[in-house]
Amino acid sequence: MTEDIFDLAKRRKTVRKFSLRPVDWKEIIKVIKTACQAPSGANSQPWRFLIVTDTETKRRIRKACEQGEKEFYSNVNGELREWLLRKELNCRKPFLEEAPFLTFIFSEKKAPYSIQSTWLAIGYILLMIEKLGLGTVTYTPSIAKDVLNILDVPEGYRLEVILPIGFSADEKAKELRFKFNEVTYINSWGRSPKISN
Amino acid sequence: MTEDIFDLAKRRKTVRKFSLRPVDWKEIIKVIKTACQAPSGANSQPWRFLIVTDTETKRRIRKACEQGEKEFYSNVNGELREWLLRKELNCRKPFLEEAPFLTFIFSEKKAPYSIQSTWLAIGYILLMIEKLGLGTVTYTPSIAKDVLNILDVPEGYRLEVILPIGFSADEKAKELRFKFNEVTYINSWGRSPKISN
Repeated sequence: MTEDIFDLAKRRKTVRKFSLRPVDWKEIIKVIKTACQAPSGANSQPWRFLIVTDTETKRRIRKACEQGEKEFYSNVNGELREWLLRKELNCRKPFLEEAPFLTFIFSEKKAPYSIQSTWLAIGYILLMIEKLGLGTVTYTPSIAKDVLNILDVPEGYRLEVILPIGFSADEKAKELRFKFNEVTYINSWGRSPKISN
Repeated sequence: MTEDIFDLAKRRKTVRKFSLRPVDWKEIIKVIKTACQAPSGANSQPWRFLIVTDTETKRRIRKACEQGEKEFYSNVNGELREWLLRKELNCRKPFLEEAPFLTFIFSEKKAPYSIQSTWLAIGYILLMIEKLGLGTVTYTPSIAKDVLNILDVPEGYRLEVILPIGFSADEKAKELRFKFNEVTYINSWGRSPKISN
């Protein structure tokens, strides 16, 4: 059974389209309880979770995000722009209305290593979501100001990500990954391992 | 079996003391292969891994880190200083020599969301390490310059963390965590869930 974290990680892919099949609250609670067990800088536990199920709130969030993306996309260029175009990503974020649950994850700005700790916990979350047979995408709005207003988020917290959570209706294949020995060195930079993939 | 990611996360605690028991290379490879499956901004896979087993390199790394901590600790104050004192943390980092493997994790600075993506992958790594019965601590040197020099790390990469990996000889209990409903809101900030822990 030592392989199954690897298997989960390998199987897990980004989901941007969700089925109408409802998700039990209990599953969402399990996901967040898992995140709460992560380590954090000075054990500050800088994460906060806000779960949105309300239809009207989701609609407003989607609108605010899509507006923000339009602003952002009109300014982006270089490699990232090319990638976005190639992947046919655009300003539309229908998953923000379609997923039964939206989980907003915030970090407390003044906590030590708050971004790092919160994203480590998001790693825990993604594996738990996969384990439960659910899907998500780590969507970070390019411009978060209106989202923070809609949700009454106080000063001092940063929106790290919105995770729409639901059953997948996304048939896209997983993006390819580098192989182990393409990103790993032994004892000094540039010295690749003589170990098979 | 849907509970076992939560169980792993709950059981997992920081390990700062390591036993002399050797660790198989195969285990370290599994750990990194798991990280390589994580999602990343624009699928840039900004992570790089450098595994150090060489005794002399470990000794130099430890010395550089301890020197950096001395500089850092002489300037730190406020809540973080109090926490460090209370936890009896200090400039000594013996685990950098004692653990059989040191895994250095870097992020490519120019990749989109490189810090976030790399720490998400570190979340995957911690669960895999726990699954294998091994332990680690997410140690980020306060001053990384000398470490980067020792390892010949080129410009453009940031040291995110050093993970010493080995079998635990650390008897300290896990730090307490907030309960689910202390860090979770429903539909709007400040509205806590009426759901038992």
